[in-house]
Amino acid sequence: MLLDKDRLFPTDPAVRNLARSLYDDICDLPIISPHGHTDPRWFAENKPFSDPAQLLVTPDHYVFRMLHSQGIPLEAMGVPREDGGKTEQDPRKIWRLFAENYYLFRATPSRIWVDHVLQEVFGIYKPLSAETADEIYDHIDNCLTQDAFRPRALFEQFNIEAISTTESAIDDLKWHKLIQQSGWGGKVVTAYRPDAVIDPEFDGFADNVQKLGEMAGEDTTTWQGYLAAHRNRRAFFKSFGSTSSDHGHPTARTENFDPSVAANLFDKALRGECSADEADAFRGHMLTEMARMSLDDGLVLQIHPGAARNHSDAIFTKFGRDKGYDIPSRTDYVNALKPLLNAVGGEPDLTIIVFTLDESSYARELAPLAGVYPALKLGPPWWFHDSYEGMMRFREMATETAGFYNTVGFNDDTRAFCSIPARHDVARRVDSAFLATLVATGRLAENDAREVSYDLAYRLAKQAYRL
Amino acid sequence: MLLDKDRLFPTDPAVRNLARSLYDDICDLPIISPHGHTDPRWFAENKPFSDPAQLLVTPDHYVFRMLHSQGIPLEAMGVPREDGGKTEQDPRKIWRLFAENYYLFRATPSRIWVDHVLQEVFGIYKPLSAETADEIYDHIDNCLTQDAFRPRALFEQFNIEAISTTESAIDDLKWHKLIQQSGWGGKVVTAYRPDAVIDPEFDGFADNVQKLGEMAGEDTTTWQGYLAAHRNRRAFFKSFGSTSSDHGHPTARTENFDPSVAANLFDKALRGECSADEADAFRGHMLTEMARMSLDDGLVLQIHPGAARNHSDAIFTKFGRDKGYDIPSRTDYVNALKPLLNAVGGEPDLTIIVFTLDESSYARELAPLAGVYPALKLGPPWWFHDSYEGMMRFREMATETAGFYNTVGFNDDTRAFCSIPARHDVARRVDSAFLATLVATGRLAENDAREVSYDLAYRLAKQAYRL
Amino acid sequence: MLLDKDRLFPTDPAVRNLARSLYDDICDLPIISPHGHTDPRWFAENKPFSDPAQLLVTPDHYVFRMLHSQGIPLEAMGVPREDGGKTEQDPRKIWRLFAENYYLFRATPSRIWVDHVLQEVFGIYKPLSAETADEIYDHIDNCLTQDAFRPRALFEQFNIEAISTTESAIDDLKWHKLIQQSGWGGKVVTAYRPDAVIDPEFDGFADNVQKLGEMAGEDTTTWQGYLAAHRNRRAFFKSFGSTSSDHGHPTARTENFDPSVAANLFDKALRGECSADEADAFRGHMLTEMARMSLDDGLVLQIHPGAARNHSDAIFTKFGRDKGYDIPSRTDYVNALKPLLNAVGGEPDLTIIVFTLDESSYARELAPLAGVYPALKLGPPWWFHDSYEGMMRFREMATETAGFYNTVGFNDDTRAFCSIPARHDVARRVDSAFLATLVATGRLAENDAREVSYDLAYRLAKQAYRL
Repeated sequence: MLLDKDRLFPTDPAVRNLARSLYDDICDLPIISPHGHTDPRWFAENKPFSDPAQLLVTPDHYVFRMLHSQGIPLEAMGVPREDGGKTEQDPRKIWRLFAENYYLFRATPSRIWVDHVLQEVFGIYKPLSAETADEIYDHIDNCLTQDAFRPRALFEQFNIEAISTTESAIDDLKWHKLIQQSGWGGKVVTAYRPDAVIDPEFDGFADNVQKLGEMAGEDTTTWQGYLAAHRNRRAFFKSFGSTSSDHGHPTARTENFDPSVAANLFDKALRGECSADEADAFRGHMLTEMARMSLDDGLVLQIHPGAARNHSDAIFTKFGRDKGYDIPSRTDYVNALKPLLNAVGGEPDLTIIVFTLDESSYARELAPLAGVYPALKLGPPWWFHDSYEGMMRFREMATETAGFYNTVGFNDDTRAFCSIPARHDVARRVDSAFLATLVATGRLAENDAREVSYDLAYRLAKQAYRL
Repeated sequence: MLLDKDRLFPTDPAVRNLARSLYDDICDLPIISPHGHTDPRWFAENKPFSDPAQLLVTPDHYVFRMLHSQGIPLEAMGVPREDGGKTEQDPRKIWRLFAENYYLFRATPSRIWVDHVLQEVFGIYKPLSAETADEIYDHIDNCLTQDAFRPRALFEQFNIEAISTTESAIDDLKWHKLIQQSGWGGKVVTAYRPDAVIDPEFDGFADNVQKLGEMAGEDTTTWQGYLAAHRNRRAFFKSFGSTSSDHGHPTARTENFDPSVAANLFDKALRGECSADEADAFRGHMLTEMARMSLDDGLVLQIHPGAARNHSDAIFTKFGRDKGYDIPSRTDYVNALKPLLNAVGGEPDLTIIVFTLDESSYARELAPLAGVYPALKLGPPWWFHDSYEGMMRFREMATETAGFYNTVGFNDDTRAFCSIPARHDVARRVDSAFLATLVATGRLAENDAREVSYDLAYRLAKQAYRL
Repeated sequence: MLLDKDRLFPTDPAVRNLARSLYDDICDLPIISPHGHTDPRWFAENKPFSDPAQLLVTPDHYVFRMLHSQGIPLEAMGVPREDGGKTEQDPRKIWRLFAENYYLFRATPSRIWVDHVLQEVFGIYKPLSAETADEIYDHIDNCLTQDAFRPRALFEQFNIEAISTTESAIDDLKWHKLIQQSGWGGKVVTAYRPDAVIDPEFDGFADNVQKLGEMAGEDTTTWQGYLAAHRNRRAFFKSFGSTSSDHGHPTARTENFDPSVAANLFDKALRGECSADEADAFRGHMLTEMARMSLDDGLVLQIHPGAARNHSDAIFTKFGRDKGYDIPSRTDYVNALKPLLNAVGGEPDLTIIVFTLDESSYARELAPLAGVYPALKLGPPWWFHDSYEGMMRFREMATETAGFYNTVGFNDDTRAFCSIPARHDVARRVDSAFLATLVATGRLAENDAREVSYDLAYRLAKQAYRL
């Protein structure tokens, strides 16, 4: 067995029994995955996944960054180079490298996710290591040729009730169209991610804005036309099930400028003349514009701030974005969110979900803010904090001030499709452990705990994201 | 039963037994409440409290902010409007709203406090809910008509040995006078809170300073007269039992200017010409002046920094201060306290008690500072951190570097009179849990734990506050 | 017994058994002490230690700062004054003062270390107190006259396989020479600490740089000569076993300037004309130069940033540096380390070990950085965090993202020689407790835990420091 059946539960036998009992009630609930980065093409084409390395190693930044931290070049794991330079092409070699170094993942969430995938998806019960590498490779490779392991079959096996992918505002959503037209019953929706047309520092910003205009049939050389184009695209995204927009800015800064100030900044941005501060201000103002549009069209606004992206110039030059070199940084919320919250934070029909990579803000800033502003809710622990300790710290630091009902359940935020059940299972176990501890220490009645447990595992995500 | 008799104790049976044993020794000790915001008028007039909503809902910012966070307008909870606009006047309706939404408080300290009040003060053993709202309302309402539930009777029943209220430097202390004259034996003292005459940004600062001069018989248009007026008022407060001053600045900044610089800043402040930075500098300098006065008159200096007040303009305009929209912010202590500590930090007869809303400073800044400066002590977890997890984090993060004897016991800091026993009980339980864990892990001898337990529950607060 | 044989293990009986079993396997492993501040003269001369106060009280800043925090003057503990003023000279009086106030250390790491020394080194089983002060003093004093308590005998008894002291770049290493020449088999190496010749704000910087040139036979009035002198001295230190350099800057700032910019800053520094920011920039640039030299000579680069030194002017004036008045401050790593990491962070043969006093950076910045950059490793919890809670927080916050293999085992960083076994024992116990908890919660297989346990207790330090 790779997985302990009582994993992540408290060690005290009585509390463990209670945690298990809470967990047993909710472990088979359908998965609501309201925020993530799976590829809609998988579900549109429903082709088999190519090989074990492509499925579990090469595209997973948690995995390749850890191997890389011990001196293994990204090329050796098949991570593609921007300059087209040579990288390892043999999936079996990549898999062996992963297997030999699998000890590096001891006590990391990646280890739990991968073990879960091996055991629960592929029926493997031996630990991965240099010795078992080939045998496990062959086993998975063989599975991938079977229909039961195609994307749609796995989707159904995973008991996913609804999943959201994330697409750029200037994506044509052709894979979503194909899914819609296919008649397949799986609920795969999109989310509106406009960073490329909102961030003046984004590669090709002006061209992106022009393309936005073309797609929307609006004149995006003017501020009003630009806003109209956003409205148009949001409606288009909604026609593919979208219930949310998503924004990944370097800071949590928001602004609420007069229209003339905003229009001026927009003109400067289009001309490529924004200073770094003006670019940040423009991004911040656009969050408030997005929130105002949300008041009309009902999309949930998600703010994911605080990553210092592409920390290594050398890696960025050679491999491009999203190569494990994004590092969390200290993030202010109290001052940063004030303009947005003053503009729309009192609206009970608006939902703004904020995430953080800076845990020092949970108890100090985020829980107090979410514990009073009607529009504000706290997203679950995110990215580096999507783990046993990370989730436990979130509950311990946020719950006393924000309660459970200003949070929105779990989301997996992943591109690693097979890990989705693993991640939701971790969240359900950690919440069961937390709730059982509350009951055992007289802080929550057991029947209340059962209700909260259901809410955290299923209802809150469905409700907050309107899925 | 609303309350588990072993609540907040560790779950391991042996450690729980030890925690209970420690707790049993100190649970009936008298309450020292050296810092809080109860209304002296209650004890002066000794009139019955009006109704359950006024007692437990409308004035409690922890309660109304949570309901508000889910979209309930403050008006519906009877929170008075600054502009005199309509608010709910029917206490039963307010109570029902509270009861229906009581599930929002699951796992929050408010839930423990309110349940404690319901069970221990009013003898209610059924959970509050929509179903029980009226029955519980009627029961409490009936209690409030009885003499045993008047303020002085409750004071005695709560076993309060001494309580401090907090009054503005320009308060006439008439309720304290009435208490003194009444011959009643309850020890209710005041604390000197001069924010209104120290903070150049306080509403009506110049008028307040003039009033201060009139009350003190000093010419507060001059710097020397202003300082003399403070000395005079502090003496006046001392005649009503005051042993401390209290300062709630936005930052922990202190300064120690030459008198001419300070006098200049004071002149600018009186003329309303201080920049934001100068206002902060003046407040900071006044902390050092207050500390110097403390060297003469023995008042304990309390610094409560770090709240970004009135975060929502709309709520502030409509409802005024203290409406749940004060949010903790990141607070520096190392540099901020340096001028004050360099001026007086080495004085062994001076006591400066510092509080924080920024837990990241416990282990990093506050414990190291309190662990070396003779004058500096750490106040207990405050406001949003006055809770099981908050108290546990404080002990875990501060004790190893500051020890127990650079801390000052618990204070409840509350305006919710009936919650005082509940809050001290939580502190006593959490400390018992912490001490029992230390003993069980070989970090503290059991007989030492018993001595520390008594100190934390009773002696340290009495000694630090000279009560 | 002063020490509980199961101290620091989890309280749940099953998990405790597992922790004890893990600990039993590694508790007798030799000690690798790759970073510390013991005096090489002890091992060179091998003279007896003078008396119990000089051994355990007067030189230990953890001890005297705690007593001082309660109003005891440093003079009373025999701490020498810079101005030659009178201090207590009677070691028995100092010892009694310590004993009377020993209760202040309850639940601090100092208490565990001192109790460990009393019991395990001196065979004392009674708690230290006013009553036992003289008896224990006499006992230790008598021990110190015996050969078995001389430095080399203790070194062997402590089972130290290798220890590193720390010397200034302009130290002549005469005690290390004596050790080398003595033929004694104990492995005592030095570490290259160039703060005095790298920090433009260091007392006597220009003179120090001149002395560096003289010792190295290089012209340190030029930038190239200055760098050459460093290379020369590093080689000299390597001839006394050094495998590392160590850098204790106020911030973690690094820079990677063009040589001409660096040379200019160096000239300004020599002329005493650097602004505070330029001094910081120069220090930061020198870290990158040191790293480049490490690529050639293989020394491990240690960065120990974040202490605001000499917080009290009065104490600094009277007693000088290192008097317990160094306070951690908030430290940025993401931006600060970027120039260094961009220059050399991808080098798999380089080892940069970074420490912190700001625990809020563990999960947010340091673990994500060490979890991707090949050259970067995390040092163990340091200084105020070298304790049960500090070590546990480190493991809980760093492991999930950095894993175990981007950390480097424990180092004691101490000047208190007798406390070395105590400190390593604490680390081994805490890691056993942490690992046992991981196993019990299904996050680590037991056989993997045994391997990790050995690595943390012994192998990782030996490997990372190339000892």
